[in-house]
Amino acid sequence: MPFLKNAWYVAAWSEEVEQAPNAQTIIGEHVVLFRDTGGHVIALGDTCPHRFAPLHMGKVMGDHIQCPYHGLRFDNRGRCVHNPFDKVTPAAATVPTYPVVERDRIVWIWMGDPRTANESLIPDFGWLGELDTYAYTALSKMEQSVDYELVLDNLMDLSHGQFLHPTTLGNEAFATGTTETTSTAREVRFNRWNPGGNAPKLFVVGGVAREGDKVDFWNDVRWDAPCSYYLQVGVTPVGQPREQGKFMHSAHLLTPVDANRLVYRYVLARNFAMDNRDITTGIEDLVRYAFTQEDEPVLKAVQQRMAGRDFWDLRPVILKTDKAAILVRRTLQKLMEDERATLTRA
Amino acid sequence: MPFLKNAWYVAAWSEEVEQAPNAQTIIGEHVVLFRDTGGHVIALGDTCPHRFAPLHMGKVMGDHIQCPYHGLRFDNRGRCVHNPFDKVTPAAATVPTYPVVERDRIVWIWMGDPRTANESLIPDFGWLGELDTYAYTALSKMEQSVDYELVLDNLMDLSHGQFLHPTTLGNEAFATGTTETTSTAREVRFNRWNPGGNAPKLFVVGGVAREGDKVDFWNDVRWDAPCSYYLQVGVTPVGQPREQGKFMHSAHLLTPVDANRLVYRYVLARNFAMDNRDITTGIEDLVRYAFTQEDEPVLKAVQQRMAGRDFWDLRPVILKTDKAAILVRRTLQKLMEDERATLTRA
Amino acid sequence: MPFLKNAWYVAAWSEEVEQAPNAQTIIGEHVVLFRDTGGHVIALGDTCPHRFAPLHMGKVMGDHIQCPYHGLRFDNRGRCVHNPFDKVTPAAATVPTYPVVERDRIVWIWMGDPRTANESLIPDFGWLGELDTYAYTALSKMEQSVDYELVLDNLMDLSHGQFLHPTTLGNEAFATGTTETTSTAREVRFNRWNPGGNAPKLFVVGGVAREGDKVDFWNDVRWDAPCSYYLQVGVTPVGQPREQGKFMHSAHLLTPVDANRLVYRYVLARNFAMDNRDITTGIEDLVRYAFTQEDEPVLKAVQQRMAGRDFWDLRPVILKTDKAAILVRRTLQKLMEDERATLTRA
Repeated sequence: MPFLKNAWYVAAWSEEVEQAPNAQTIIGEHVVLFRDTGGHVIALGDTCPHRFAPLHMGKVMGDHIQCPYHGLRFDNRGRCVHNPFDKVTPAAATVPTYPVVERDRIVWIWMGDPRTANESLIPDFGWLGELDTYAYTALSKMEQSVDYELVLDNLMDLSHGQFLHPTTLGNEAFATGTTETTSTAREVRFNRWNPGGNAPKLFVVGGVAREGDKVDFWNDVRWDAPCSYYLQVGVTPVGQPREQGKFMHSAHLLTPVDANRLVYRYVLARNFAMDNRDITTGIEDLVRYAFTQEDEPVLKAVQQRMAGRDFWDLRPVILKTDKAAILVRRTLQKLMEDERATLTRA
Repeated sequence: MPFLKNAWYVAAWSEEVEQAPNAQTIIGEHVVLFRDTGGHVIALGDTCPHRFAPLHMGKVMGDHIQCPYHGLRFDNRGRCVHNPFDKVTPAAATVPTYPVVERDRIVWIWMGDPRTANESLIPDFGWLGELDTYAYTALSKMEQSVDYELVLDNLMDLSHGQFLHPTTLGNEAFATGTTETTSTAREVRFNRWNPGGNAPKLFVVGGVAREGDKVDFWNDVRWDAPCSYYLQVGVTPVGQPREQGKFMHSAHLLTPVDANRLVYRYVLARNFAMDNRDITTGIEDLVRYAFTQEDEPVLKAVQQRMAGRDFWDLRPVILKTDKAAILVRRTLQKLMEDERATLTRA
Repeated sequence: MPFLKNAWYVAAWSEEVEQAPNAQTIIGEHVVLFRDTGGHVIALGDTCPHRFAPLHMGKVMGDHIQCPYHGLRFDNRGRCVHNPFDKVTPAAATVPTYPVVERDRIVWIWMGDPRTANESLIPDFGWLGELDTYAYTALSKMEQSVDYELVLDNLMDLSHGQFLHPTTLGNEAFATGTTETTSTAREVRFNRWNPGGNAPKLFVVGGVAREGDKVDFWNDVRWDAPCSYYLQVGVTPVGQPREQGKFMHSAHLLTPVDANRLVYRYVLARNFAMDNRDITTGIEDLVRYAFTQEDEPVLKAVQQRMAGRDFWDLRPVILKTDKAAILVRRTLQKLMEDERATLTRA
């Protein structure tokens, strides 16, 4: 499957993982998460090596997880440490273990060779931990029957907002404005600047502008390989510097389940009207509607049209507005080729 | 997929196609239909060449259709004529266009090479347009999870009526009578003549005979490649010429969606008791019951039994009553082989 | 498909088969069962050789079965004996016929070469016919989306009772005790002896012991290839001989539908408290819960984890407690290899 393995993926929001086992499928691998007696998140392969029962159907016993079927127990290094029917535990009875880092309310997991796990590659979502500075929407989680690369295409070309989200996230101002795109080996950024357009609905709901008000607005985007996405949206009175305006952070954290499905975790933060619960709810409703009623049906339809064929084999017409999305596809492709080359050599 | 491409298929009833986009899948190809400002039906490939979104999820703007995702617009020749984000529209941004003929309330579509579209091959259903002469059932449309060739087998051998439709379309008289079969390169016809049997239920519902009345009755059938079927059923008092009797036209217009599904369009016309709405409803109910409760379950079961294997590879036992059905299968096979040979040469 | 063909499978409980056609799919083959005018069970291939309609959708006419589609009739030797449209019935129009033996309320079917059907290979479930000696639970039938070999693994290693059925069929005593295992060319037996444990719930429901009572208990198991399983469970006061105790017979009769599904027929008999209907209902409820709420979810999950791959290719860790289950797998494998060798030679 076309996934980068040596990379950090979002395994869960911190609040999802409790002592009881939590099952996730990430880039096709079955993973079970649980907290040990010290509160640390443990991530193990979710298939018992004896009779292939999912460990998450069993129980956590102290620092160990017990298979539901015959009671074998595994420790945080994936070793079988207890066989109820024998004093001996077979040395071959092991499950994979995955490096995990919990940071800023996100549980990150390294899906590749544990020896190469490099914490400095975890993208920065520090604002998610600044609980006194921001008001947050709920930490949301949606499952979508869509290939994650199609969602990245979508997120990296916000020009679709005018057509797919004309009354929610976008408006006709999206057809104008300027975009600057930059990239490095594992990151693509772009900044859009739209002067003098109608205020985006998000800021109308946010109480910052009224419907039809003219504003200057911006979208600053940062994608980190393989599928973490940061978006800052901001508005300022026409002609005023950004500092006079208001902005919102948002995180779009994609976790591919397999080639056809993903888990989409989303949160948005604002540093104004922080005690206004109605604004929070209004933003949550607006975004949920746009994602599930506008984006998802089209992306699922695109996936059906592609019918499992490779994106490039379908010879897509490339527009200028595709620049950042194409950069993301090529960056991912390059990283996967490099990874495959390393594996072949090893 | 085993379909004749250079052929006319029924894309829709005229009344199905309005200005708003209408999606059809025909022999595996995604097609969008809409009416331009002149009321002409346009048929285009339903997949945007940019990011593969279905055009039918977008909007018709005058004579053009606009992609739902990024707003590219296409004209009736399938060319991109508007890119909202650029003055230039890429020459490569085209979608296929299909020849369309609207005639006698049917929209016909040519699925092969547009240069070879030949209107003289459209089968004659002129009676469908004679609105003053006939009373019609509703123009009905059913989706069935069945290969269209199995439906043709069914329609070309009406002897099944006695067993599958003993109280609806058929009766025990179907085991007797005589059949004459003729064929040309793209057409198979057969005429059945059943003297002195019980009146078919259709004519009882039609008010022409009573249950158990003896009549002479006939079925005249014309199949045109690939999957248009005309049936005339008639009854006359025993020993009297046809002209003394009553008859009904019916059209069975099959449109294969893919190898496992089809759209079945059906209509029946009579030139007697024309103002009797109860008779029309009675016929509609009788036919719908026979198709959906009697034919479809057996045909779906046959398809499951065949499990994707080729009909001939399964070595079917051939009976005398299979003559017309086998002719249709062989005619289609011959046409497809000829077409493949032409494509290979080109 | 990985099935033994020259073997007796359970086609149905006797009470399932009446005059009307009864459809079963057994090791991937479609079979129709019906009773002839003498009350004998006939088993034929369920696909008409003419147009592949399932015969079970037709009707039994005396000793023959009539195809629903065109009325061909077949006798108990699978020969077409009537064609409504022709005096001649084509010699090629035949369906397979299967040897059947009805014994002790079970209809056994031989799925291989009829000439090799050997009644002496039918496993003994004589207690099922001793209606005056035992009280029986209902003859139950469940469909499960599980490979039958996974169910055999489960049944041949009862140590899972402690973990998967801690409050129903098993308890913590299952981790102790001794097991003796023996086998022959087509049979594997094991006897478990658990002295001094808590009384199994089945005997609490049975009114023989109270929750927490200490007892000696046993499980005597006999598996016959390919998938018939007999279990005797018994309890006796601690230190007393078996004859002082109580026991129950049970039959677990698996019929593979295909590689991913089976029909599980189950019945339990006791020779005490025979008139107590509440005990019968209590046992039925307990067992149904254990099978459908405890075993089946884990077995389905195991099957998903295996994802169609071969058991041995997945390199399962083998524990001492797997002895009987592994013997069953190896015995089946040997029998299938021998059968394939015979077929190749023939």
